[in-house]
Amino acid sequence: MASQFQSFDSVNDPAAAAPRLAALRQELRRQGLDAFAVPRADEHQGEYVPENAQRLAWLTGFTGSAGAAIAGLEKAAIFVDGRYTIQVREQVDPALFEPLELAAWSQEKWIASNLPKGGALGFDPWLHTPDSVAQLEKAVANAGGKLVPTQHNPLDAVWADRPPAPHALVRLHPLAFAGETAEAKLQRLRDALRQARCDALVISDPHALAWLFNIRGGDVGHTPLPLGYALVPAKDGPTEAKAQIFLDPAKLSDDMRGLLKPLADLATPQDLELAVMQCAKGGARIRLDAATAGFALKRLVEQAGGVADIGADPIALMKAVKNPVEREGTRIAHRRDGAALTRFLAWFEREAASGKLTEIAAAEALEDFRRETNALADLSFPTISAFGPNAAMPHYRVIRDSNRHIDQGIYLVDSGAQYNDGTTDVTRTIAVGTPTPEMRDRNTRVLKGHIAIARAVFPKGTSGAQIDAFARQYLWQAGLDFDHGTGHGVGSYLSVHEGPQRISKLGNTPLQAGMILSNEPGYYKEGAYGIRIENLVLVEEREIAGGERPMLGFETLTLAPIDLALIERSLLTSEEAAWLNAYHARVRETLGEQMDAETARWLDQATRPI
Amino acid sequence: MASQFQSFDSVNDPAAAAPRLAALRQELRRQGLDAFAVPRADEHQGEYVPENAQRLAWLTGFTGSAGAAIAGLEKAAIFVDGRYTIQVREQVDPALFEPLELAAWSQEKWIASNLPKGGALGFDPWLHTPDSVAQLEKAVANAGGKLVPTQHNPLDAVWADRPPAPHALVRLHPLAFAGETAEAKLQRLRDALRQARCDALVISDPHALAWLFNIRGGDVGHTPLPLGYALVPAKDGPTEAKAQIFLDPAKLSDDMRGLLKPLADLATPQDLELAVMQCAKGGARIRLDAATAGFALKRLVEQAGGVADIGADPIALMKAVKNPVEREGTRIAHRRDGAALTRFLAWFEREAASGKLTEIAAAEALEDFRRETNALADLSFPTISAFGPNAAMPHYRVIRDSNRHIDQGIYLVDSGAQYNDGTTDVTRTIAVGTPTPEMRDRNTRVLKGHIAIARAVFPKGTSGAQIDAFARQYLWQAGLDFDHGTGHGVGSYLSVHEGPQRISKLGNTPLQAGMILSNEPGYYKEGAYGIRIENLVLVEEREIAGGERPMLGFETLTLAPIDLALIERSLLTSEEAAWLNAYHARVRETLGEQMDAETARWLDQATRPI
Repeated sequence: MASQFQSFDSVNDPAAAAPRLAALRQELRRQGLDAFAVPRADEHQGEYVPENAQRLAWLTGFTGSAGAAIAGLEKAAIFVDGRYTIQVREQVDPALFEPLELAAWSQEKWIASNLPKGGALGFDPWLHTPDSVAQLEKAVANAGGKLVPTQHNPLDAVWADRPPAPHALVRLHPLAFAGETAEAKLQRLRDALRQARCDALVISDPHALAWLFNIRGGDVGHTPLPLGYALVPAKDGPTEAKAQIFLDPAKLSDDMRGLLKPLADLATPQDLELAVMQCAKGGARIRLDAATAGFALKRLVEQAGGVADIGADPIALMKAVKNPVEREGTRIAHRRDGAALTRFLAWFEREAASGKLTEIAAAEALEDFRRETNALADLSFPTISAFGPNAAMPHYRVIRDSNRHIDQGIYLVDSGAQYNDGTTDVTRTIAVGTPTPEMRDRNTRVLKGHIAIARAVFPKGTSGAQIDAFARQYLWQAGLDFDHGTGHGVGSYLSVHEGPQRISKLGNTPLQAGMILSNEPGYYKEGAYGIRIENLVLVEEREIAGGERPMLGFETLTLAPIDLALIERSLLTSEEAAWLNAYHARVRETLGEQMDAETARWLDQATRPI
Repeated sequence: MASQFQSFDSVNDPAAAAPRLAALRQELRRQGLDAFAVPRADEHQGEYVPENAQRLAWLTGFTGSAGAAIAGLEKAAIFVDGRYTIQVREQVDPALFEPLELAAWSQEKWIASNLPKGGALGFDPWLHTPDSVAQLEKAVANAGGKLVPTQHNPLDAVWADRPPAPHALVRLHPLAFAGETAEAKLQRLRDALRQARCDALVISDPHALAWLFNIRGGDVGHTPLPLGYALVPAKDGPTEAKAQIFLDPAKLSDDMRGLLKPLADLATPQDLELAVMQCAKGGARIRLDAATAGFALKRLVEQAGGVADIGADPIALMKAVKNPVEREGTRIAHRRDGAALTRFLAWFEREAASGKLTEIAAAEALEDFRRETNALADLSFPTISAFGPNAAMPHYRVIRDSNRHIDQGIYLVDSGAQYNDGTTDVTRTIAVGTPTPEMRDRNTRVLKGHIAIARAVFPKGTSGAQIDAFARQYLWQAGLDFDHGTGHGVGSYLSVHEGPQRISKLGNTPLQAGMILSNEPGYYKEGAYGIRIENLVLVEEREIAGGERPMLGFETLTLAPIDLALIERSLLTSEEAAWLNAYHARVRETLGEQMDAETARWLDQATRPI
């Protein structure tokens, strides 16, 4: 069956870049600009960007998930991070765009060398946050130039074959999954705004929009987002202080309109500017989300005489703490998803022996098993199906050109699904043939770190930064490490990458009961293999007999066997082995009944006590 | 023998506060002020403040190590943190000074309620950093008042019996202990300043002054500081850009002058203002230490047309990384200090059995044993000698009124010494009589955390924040924790509390080979007992066979037995027991030869393998 939710084609067309850059330069001259900044982000700074906003890819050919370009009249540069130094050379002609490091100092340096004295660097004020504008401002000032917000994006002006903006129908996210009415959420939000002494909040993050009004959309891949905005006054009056939602009317059925109208006035995105200015009049203090609000919003508020209070959207933290209905929903989603993954793992063991299986075929099969649940709304991200050296790149995505046959070695599969009741994300690392002692050693150290997080107990108020090293300690003892965080937050039928909670040295948000996070230590040996063991966990309160402080711990949500062939038993303590055996018993008991006889036999074997 | 380096008397005189506050109010009226802020700090924001700068204690009677007061014409308040809520009630009359929490919001609230509209809050610009002035500024603006830097400190004007400023002779810190010439240090500092694009540095931290010029002084207790300033231009010229040292001439012998003159011009503290203004002329960028520079310095730089670059004094990090001579020095100091402490511990076991020993007598005895080394320059802080419930207060300091007899239970002794070759800080917790199972459980969890830090291996670039939880994990598992950091930096014959390195959730400085830190997890049961096990450790590079990354670990410096009577062996893993046995073997072998026969027998028993 063909894949419905992912593509393995390279979308890159290197020949297109030269004429596009030439057209952009002509438009820059017409607008009196000497250079123009092209970020990867759209107006909402989201991880997934709709086709009509993939400006960086259109202009340069680069399709990575982070990056930026600056096009000058003579020269141009593309800025990417360490993950994409190889990919950028494959996708982008360095004669057109010099590849440079994605960092403030690097952009500063390029601007200093390439912007003429007194020259104008243009930027689209909707596509940059105030923070990133401040960085550009500094760089341009150092270069003796000026920074100019454009009225009309010059790239859009020359993008002839630009796809239309998405307008997927907005659906209700029913109370049976959401667990709290939009009215109650609005009430809590208003309380939070008043406590922060804000008069209103502009919601620029579509995840926040979806959560607050209990709606879901389909404007981008893998995350059920309706792209749009809202404006929520802090006042508690029923009419004069009604919230407003700004969505393309084509996305709203009459039924949906009827459902939303009691909560908010419905307007179009074109109405946003006026509404924000209206609201800002008379010195109102308006909270703008530092992470997602465009600089244009700050300017609107200030031009209208208001105070732009750039900070955290309070919804981010509210959304991160799942209510009891969402917690139960994610447990059900994980039982369903674990059963599909387990069927895949049993299938994989049979098929991989042939040596004919490919990364793409495996990813397609896994999607099939998930579709057979009849509950799959989407994959939560394109499956990472990686064999051997491909798995040593933590963010590898298979395309037809890179597709490997699965042979003797380690296969890594990192995948997830969107269901109405929850979002999943799970990684398993599987030995094909007999693994080397080194592979077993490394995998066991990663597993020990995974178990240390799974078993961690910590006081209320502890942040993810404080426990991140629990996952690394056994690799550190061997002089090893991995270069990504241990865990990211996960939404409830929303983004698989959700803040503010995370387990990483940068994760300063205190963990709270109800937050979902991934637990995914790894190890990567360049050119050889990659290992990652990932389960999702739910933060829960812990009662400890004789304890003195309120404590928290993790409930592991993900249910699927962890490959025993890659475990060196002698490296595990008895507590660690007991955790693994108890986890596998739970997997077997929870999923066993849903399995056909053959898979059930495989599962019994795969989850045997060690 | 009487104690030479510590006093157990309460210096508090509650009756003095009322007339002093009245006199201050009269002076405030004379100067046209409605209120005046009295911090605990002196001009150098140091931990130890000379008597002539103990303004807060003089005015209020409060002798804690952190706090502030604001005296209005009608009302006054004293702000202290959680450690001092009991002490402040014992030392300060609440009818004169309302005791409140030491926090920005708390001062803000008091100012809003007590400063009249348009009223003037005065502050001494030498005693507040620019950061704390910004906080006051905000609070006063919210209250509709104005913040006024005073020309003459009104408290000093009415302090009739004020002691003279200290003027202890400055001594050379010989190269045999310092390990690097002042010339070489100056060179490195100038390189760092040029790299930070600064034209000069004002040294306002006397620790930095002492380190840079390889000098020590005696102006405050417990830390061999010469109170003073320096100004170091970044330029590398021999004459036109010479450094300047600002020290009371009474502190400098002719010999010392001769030694310093090739390095810097010598001036008095009164010359500082003019020199800074001279240096700032023409727009020079002058680095001021955010942690210790008074607001007055910022104002001077800006008034002269310079740029005040408020940031870290680069010396702080240079000083934190000990050179090979300092590393060897601290090892020698720890062998000497460990021998003295071990003699004390053997003595203590004999004496405590009588039930007649007191906390003060024990502290005096420990000082005697240290003085018998004939190398003791000072204690590095007043000894914490605490029995039973007194030890449950982590910062308890014994005075005659609180002095307890040592009986059945737990005795905690946290002490340290200043030697020319190094600074020590060590805590031992000792069972007197038979400890309860709970005490053994808690002590063993603390020890497991201590061992986890001692055995930690981590990649270069890791900060103390990342490993802090290693020390807490076994307490967390039992629903327990402790409310202080796991470790602080330590100087080399300088402050026993040195930054920027630390092991705490706030410790974001990457650890580097050569840094000295304490490793001191604890557990405190209010009203019952306290436990802390503290050794100093030195960060060292680690070669790991088969490892892929540059790694670091700790060499434990402190050498003294850890009480086996408080250890529950069954809670230790075999690796932990092996660490303890190896540590005790090292203690025995290193110190055994220096012991008399009786103590040697005791040491053999105290360090027996378990």
